[in-house]
Amino acid sequence: MQYTSKSLERLIEAFAGLPGIGVKSAQRVALYLLDSAREESEALAEAILSLKDHVKRCRICFNLTEEAVCGICGDQKRDQQVICVIEEPKDLMAIERTGAYKGLYHVLGGALSPLEGIGEKDLHIQDLFNRIDESVNEIIIATNPTMEGEMTAAHICKMLRLTHVNISRIARGIPFGGSLEFNDTVTVAKAMEGRVGYKKDDTE
Amino acid sequence: MQYTSKSLERLIEAFAGLPGIGVKSAQRVALYLLDSAREESEALAEAILSLKDHVKRCRICFNLTEEAVCGICGDQKRDQQVICVIEEPKDLMAIERTGAYKGLYHVLGGALSPLEGIGEKDLHIQDLFNRIDESVNEIIIATNPTMEGEMTAAHICKMLRLTHVNISRIARGIPFGGSLEFNDTVTVAKAMEGRVGYKKDDTE
Repeated sequence: MQYTSKSLERLIEAFAGLPGIGVKSAQRVALYLLDSAREESEALAEAILSLKDHVKRCRICFNLTEEAVCGICGDQKRDQQVICVIEEPKDLMAIERTGAYKGLYHVLGGALSPLEGIGEKDLHIQDLFNRIDESVNEIIIATNPTMEGEMTAAHICKMLRLTHVNISRIARGIPFGGSLEFNDTVTVAKAMEGRVGYKKDDTE
Repeated sequence: MQYTSKSLERLIEAFAGLPGIGVKSAQRVALYLLDSAREESEALAEAILSLKDHVKRCRICFNLTEEAVCGICGDQKRDQQVICVIEEPKDLMAIERTGAYKGLYHVLGGALSPLEGIGEKDLHIQDLFNRIDESVNEIIIATNPTMEGEMTAAHICKMLRLTHVNISRIARGIPFGGSLEFNDTVTVAKAMEGRVGYKKDDTE
């Protein structure tokens, strides 16, 4: 592709370097920006630069924020008794999207991985331990159900056994819309093992 | 999603507004940029802004360029006798990727569409007519095989009949890797109609 303009080539390359965007999508986006209003390009460029300047980590839960303390930790209406432990801010976003959880969070910044050399010191595990006081009643461990996530969950669970808090793990099972047939054996086994009794009013 | 940082929210929104990028991809890209080096964000922002400042249309073929005349029109090694007529610069890119074509191009800037009110005056059809002189020998009409593309091709063909040039249309048929069974009747009919005789050395 030596014949298109250098600026266009550079932008397509830059977009194609982002995760989940291939060369064809990058080309489509670049041609779209070329045809759209200058304000749209300026707003996008501004948003990219401002991200780096303004976003930092909450000093309590390590969520992304623009203040010292994030909006969730600073919100007195959230349930201060429950802390949900997750790997990354994107997991927090996934849970917030459901609107089903009203407690606090703690972002570990990843999961333990001996293979990749990620140990306890690389994650905010000690910070979680330090956060737990009288007011905290339950810790929900919501690391991903992967090898690393399970190992991290087990490690945190072991540590928290020394404290007074109740510990729970998010349910593993057949996803909504999924079928037994097409799920792997571990998932099906976990779904059987984690079965939930019907309450009387569920079937009425 | 009221609780994440404003800058992050703004960037996710800006990315999600681009064609072919959904909210989840936008989120993934934004979190990636947050973790990556500042230089990468700056290069991307710079590339977005520089696109608008530097890219214009070639005054001969209306391809994208940074000079008055694009690299293809300015290249004396390209075959000056053939002009390939296409709808958009992305079609030019698709043909250039094949490396199979060595002639010139003419970018119409779209296709005729009475429904959308796009007429001859909105496209570079007259400019094509004006380009044709003694040196041009063949015009390949490579508009897309859609309703609008076919209409545009027919219109241009009718106009060009008044000149001395040979006119051809790109082949329509079963795409490579496709099967007769799963192609629509028009495509199969066109493939039959446009069948190409075997040359002797093809089967040797």
